[in-house]
Amino acid sequence: MILINENFLKLQDNYLFSTIAKKVEKYSQENKNNKIIKLGIGDVTRPVVPVVIEAINKATKEIGTKTGFKGYGPEQGYSFLRKAIIENDYKSRNIILKENEIFVSDGAKCDCGNILDIFSEKNTVAITNPVYPVYLDTNIMCGRKIIYLPLTEKNNFIPEFPKEKVDIIYLCFPNNPTGTVLNKKELEKWVQYAKENKAIILYDAAYEAFITEENIPHSIYEIEGAKEVAIEFKSYSKTAGFTGLRCAYIVVPNELMGYTKKGEKISINKLWNRRTCTKFNGVSYIIQRAAEATYSEEGKKQIKENIKYYQKNAKIIKEGLEEIGFVTYGGKNSPYIWLKVPNKMTSWEFFDEMLEKTNIVGTPGSGFGKCGEGYFRLTAFGTIEDSIEAIKRIKKI
Amino acid sequence: MILINENFLKLQDNYLFSTIAKKVEKYSQENKNNKIIKLGIGDVTRPVVPVVIEAINKATKEIGTKTGFKGYGPEQGYSFLRKAIIENDYKSRNIILKENEIFVSDGAKCDCGNILDIFSEKNTVAITNPVYPVYLDTNIMCGRKIIYLPLTEKNNFIPEFPKEKVDIIYLCFPNNPTGTVLNKKELEKWVQYAKENKAIILYDAAYEAFITEENIPHSIYEIEGAKEVAIEFKSYSKTAGFTGLRCAYIVVPNELMGYTKKGEKISINKLWNRRTCTKFNGVSYIIQRAAEATYSEEGKKQIKENIKYYQKNAKIIKEGLEEIGFVTYGGKNSPYIWLKVPNKMTSWEFFDEMLEKTNIVGTPGSGFGKCGEGYFRLTAFGTIEDSIEAIKRIKKI
Repeated sequence: MILINENFLKLQDNYLFSTIAKKVEKYSQENKNNKIIKLGIGDVTRPVVPVVIEAINKATKEIGTKTGFKGYGPEQGYSFLRKAIIENDYKSRNIILKENEIFVSDGAKCDCGNILDIFSEKNTVAITNPVYPVYLDTNIMCGRKIIYLPLTEKNNFIPEFPKEKVDIIYLCFPNNPTGTVLNKKELEKWVQYAKENKAIILYDAAYEAFITEENIPHSIYEIEGAKEVAIEFKSYSKTAGFTGLRCAYIVVPNELMGYTKKGEKISINKLWNRRTCTKFNGVSYIIQRAAEATYSEEGKKQIKENIKYYQKNAKIIKEGLEEIGFVTYGGKNSPYIWLKVPNKMTSWEFFDEMLEKTNIVGTPGSGFGKCGEGYFRLTAFGTIEDSIEAIKRIKKI
Repeated sequence: MILINENFLKLQDNYLFSTIAKKVEKYSQENKNNKIIKLGIGDVTRPVVPVVIEAINKATKEIGTKTGFKGYGPEQGYSFLRKAIIENDYKSRNIILKENEIFVSDGAKCDCGNILDIFSEKNTVAITNPVYPVYLDTNIMCGRKIIYLPLTEKNNFIPEFPKEKVDIIYLCFPNNPTGTVLNKKELEKWVQYAKENKAIILYDAAYEAFITEENIPHSIYEIEGAKEVAIEFKSYSKTAGFTGLRCAYIVVPNELMGYTKKGEKISINKLWNRRTCTKFNGVSYIIQRAAEATYSEEGKKQIKENIKYYQKNAKIIKEGLEEIGFVTYGGKNSPYIWLKVPNKMTSWEFFDEMLEKTNIVGTPGSGFGKCGEGYFRLTAFGTIEDSIEAIKRIKKI
């Protein structure tokens, strides 16, 4: 008899964003004339930049020819892209990585889930609360014990060490959903903690391009010794607008070790390489060429323009909200603004009120976990016109 | 302490195709003037057809504009592609499917591995022997018990029912690596077996486009009742040359049920949908447009041309080998020719001899499992010039 993985039954029935989508759909159906502004899901809106378009065109032309055709590529990613990553994302920050430490993938969401394959289900996992739901759900799916690290006003959104011993620690900074950051000193403490406890840090740096302030690490490998304890997740989604193109990568340093129950050291890089070769067949060649193009001089310039555009939106939203008395976090080194819901409303009550009174869609903080209750996430990924209009509408009520 | 998934340590150290690649690399280094013909790995060589190139160009232009930009798409695939699949791959064979039963992915290899997430590790798995290594390795990775169904000359490469009860059955027909097929009657027996044992069939139909003979099912859903017991895996890799573009899909019928330990029925479709939403973010929009283009009238014509080209290679290789006394299987409804190694050599001995004496790279049958020992796989995915030249060289020795 075919038995299912019963851990799936422990998942909440609805994925946060599909619940939102349904509510919005219903409202739209009933109020067809109202223009809804979506600042909920973290999806970008700027078109793909010209250098990327050109790179895709060039690669597409290539694969249509006999000599230029590309079949299966290396599962880990083409050398041209891995080299560009090492050179531009790391060497420029004095972080030296080897090509075999870079694994190109079709998305950070996939990577976050897939990486768990190589670890024992006996590991205890620490995630922040609130948290990007994927970290939580993918661990529930394999039945791991989960410990929550609250991110609250009280601790200034800096996670404290868990009382119980943990083995896998998810850190996402600039944080999704709170938009807050860890400075170098705070991150150093976590690297130290991981070393002392032989734990591993899964460091999600998907939003590092939005950092504006000094002394905020763009990569965990800026911290000495982090290569021994951390895997880093990066993505072209939010920086270069690849949410619809699909490309990301992770860094799995050769120094990183896991353990057997008997205490033998095992290379995590080798395990992940085996997983990648067996369960993945690489990212589309034309998409990898697209990712490569983001590192050209012109590419960097065009992408910076887009990021500046979103940063301007963040400023408009954050300052606009603060002007009328909202308490907000994030938005400075992050495309996310985490606002405190007024009048002791719940996050979902505020969601409904926002949808009905202003036709603005945000994300209820409680959807990211208990400690997100009473908060609301707005993203800066909309158009500047929408961001301005949203603040106008909120000011009216 | 971070514990690894120790099942990984039970895997053979090297993935079959990387071992071959290393041997070939070494030989090439030592014999730089010899022209090697690669008929080993099942990768295509024909350029991507013009309609697909045009579709990519059009979609790429779109995403570079403000109004045409596409961000996150539906995790399960765009409606336009799912509809085209239902219409062209199924309705044309009198199989009626619903849109929610189609899940578009970035490759059948990924699907084969990922589908296992939703099943219990307590299930016993039946795989043929020889077998596509991914079925085996992905199950070893999660520690499932594996039963082998031999595919040999003795049973005419038709798998017999296992003595022990099994819960998950992998069937790949036209078969990789043997190139053999199951007729309708034989497949019916397996559907019946699955029903009686509440087992699930994972049906890999990646090579169905190569079927030339009548009465060979192109889809398992041609068998009555198969929707209650089977998931079907399809790919654009071998048919439309998408090995480097990356697109595939699976069919998970709404009728398909799994069970909890207590015997409650659970919808497999719902579980897979949850898995997809949580651990995947959809296939690149431009790649989905590329896949859609394969279903246009012109697209179908262009793809058929490519398949005919490979079929011609298969014929050249198969007939050429038989002329000089080789016993061969497959090659008729499949791009794979499974030849019996002469003179009681092992598969790897024959591999080495072929590489050294003819500079032809094939795949040792034993790499696909014990029962593949004494066999050798050649693929028809090379160029016609190489296929002709290969036979010439073999005839010389």
